Amino acid sequence: MEDQSLMTIDLKDGERIDDLQRNGYKIIQNGNKFCFGMDAVLLSGFADAMEGEKVLDIGTGTGIIPILMEAKTDGAHFTGLEIQEASAEMAERSVRLNGLEDKIEIVCGDINNTSNLWKTGDFDVITTNPPYMINSHGLKSDNMEKSIARHEICCTLEDIVRESSRLLKIKGRFYMVHRPFRLVGIFTTLAKYRLEPKRMRLVYPFADKEPNMVLIEALKDGNPRLTVEKPLIVYKEPGVYTDEIYEIYGYDK
Amino acid sequence: MEDQSLMTIDLKDGERIDDLQRNGYKIIQNGNKFCFGMDAVLLSGFADAMEGEKVLDIGTGTGIIPILMEAKTDGAHFTGLEIQEASAEMAERSVRLNGLEDKIEIVCGDINNTSNLWKTGDFDVITTNPPYMINSHGLKSDNMEKSIARHEICCTLEDIVRESSRLLKIKGRFYMVHRPFRLVGIFTTLAKYRLEPKRMRLVYPFADKEPNMVLIEALKDGNPRLTVEKPLIVYKEPGVYTDEIYEIYGYDK
Repeated sequence: MEDQSLMTIDLKDGERIDDLQRNGYKIIQNGNKFCFGMDAVLLSGFADAMEGEKVLDIGTGTGIIPILMEAKTDGAHFTGLEIQEASAEMAERSVRLNGLEDKIEIVCGDINNTSNLWKTGDFDVITTNPPYMINSHGLKSDNMEKSIARHEICCTLEDIVRESSRLLKIKGRFYMVHRPFRLVGIFTTLAKYRLEPKRMRLVYPFADKEPNMVLIEALKDGNPRLTVEKPLIVYKEPGVYTDEIYEIYGYDK
Repeated sequence: MEDQSLMTIDLKDGERIDDLQRNGYKIIQNGNKFCFGMDAVLLSGFADAMEGEKVLDIGTGTGIIPILMEAKTDGAHFTGLEIQEASAEMAERSVRLNGLEDKIEIVCGDINNTSNLWKTGDFDVITTNPPYMINSHGLKSDNMEKSIARHEICCTLEDIVRESSRLLKIKGRFYMVHRPFRLVGIFTTLAKYRLEPKRMRLVYPFADKEPNMVLIEALKDGNPRLTVEKPLIVYKEPGVYTDEIYEIYGYDK
């Protein structure tokens, strides 16, 4: 069955198929364009979706987060929204490659223009691994697809938070991975749009280094009280992941 | 000289003198009332004051923070503001005990009523180890002095932040220790009063546990960009501090 699917999926120039070490799932990526990072994998381990819940991933890129969340959670249905047509088309092929058309839908569209797609409160859960860099700060323009994935060119953090708040039902959950240097703006923006941060985990490359990622769970109209979780350490020594990272990735050590 | 000072300081019922392991400084505490905690010591290690700078400590209690900051930094002058008369009087005796009357002034007063004391922009640095608990949440009323130190009875976080912003000069620095569960409100309140968080360090009792303190440095009218520092771990094993904690305390191991 899996081999049959494989044969019906065309790969374009520069594309490869990577094994996700999870449910036998695979993903198509293009090494010349934006490939998913550890950020997306850690978010899929931090986020959760319960039985029957509808999940939206904003800026889905390769589709990595819906595909991993489908494998890891009991969520009923996953939608990946992607503004770039080429990325959305590639993610759609990854969904078909895994035979997940009934569980995952990839939509090409703009988060600032979703009123024709979804109603207020349509989702139980929203996930997002948004562009980290403000505007064109440090922008290298040689690859527009990468730039749009990394910089707030097509949408800002405020756009994502405002629209997420609108699309989440009351007590719906918002999960985001971002960079710690933007934490103040993240918290003030979430609070402004009634997404109350409830859980935060900082990701430290090594136990004695500054964190380079932050995982956040916010609750639509939640009460204010944040739990900061224990540190998530990536490497126990150079080149060797900690046990927790191996678990999240699903690798055999 | 030190012994002479010692002899002129009266101790009241229940009071003791503790050695601060720093410059030979000592502090008077009353075991039946509020004693300083690790919070104050860690804040005095996180905060800094440069040559010539004027420092205000809001809610100084025993006076621990000005006394430690005087020992650890090059700051020119330190003021400790305390609303409770008995605490302020005891802190004043600790200042005299150490012969620091020229460097440290203890003022008994209310942070919400300082316009007769200080002008806008009078300080370069503000430190504070404020009450952590909101209103009377979990309040035990058997000891009002402890309650006022721990709960937002006499002032709220917003009072402290608003008045700090007023009393700090442009680019003045605000240092606070608080509880991580209030981090969202801390950031939104600091941002509201133009105190931009620039540096944050989480204090974890053990490397694999949730943090129980957060140290924050904010800059009056600073640009938004937060540095989250490496974790500060308190114990390497039960009962044994990490090297960094021994260093901050100044103990010989």
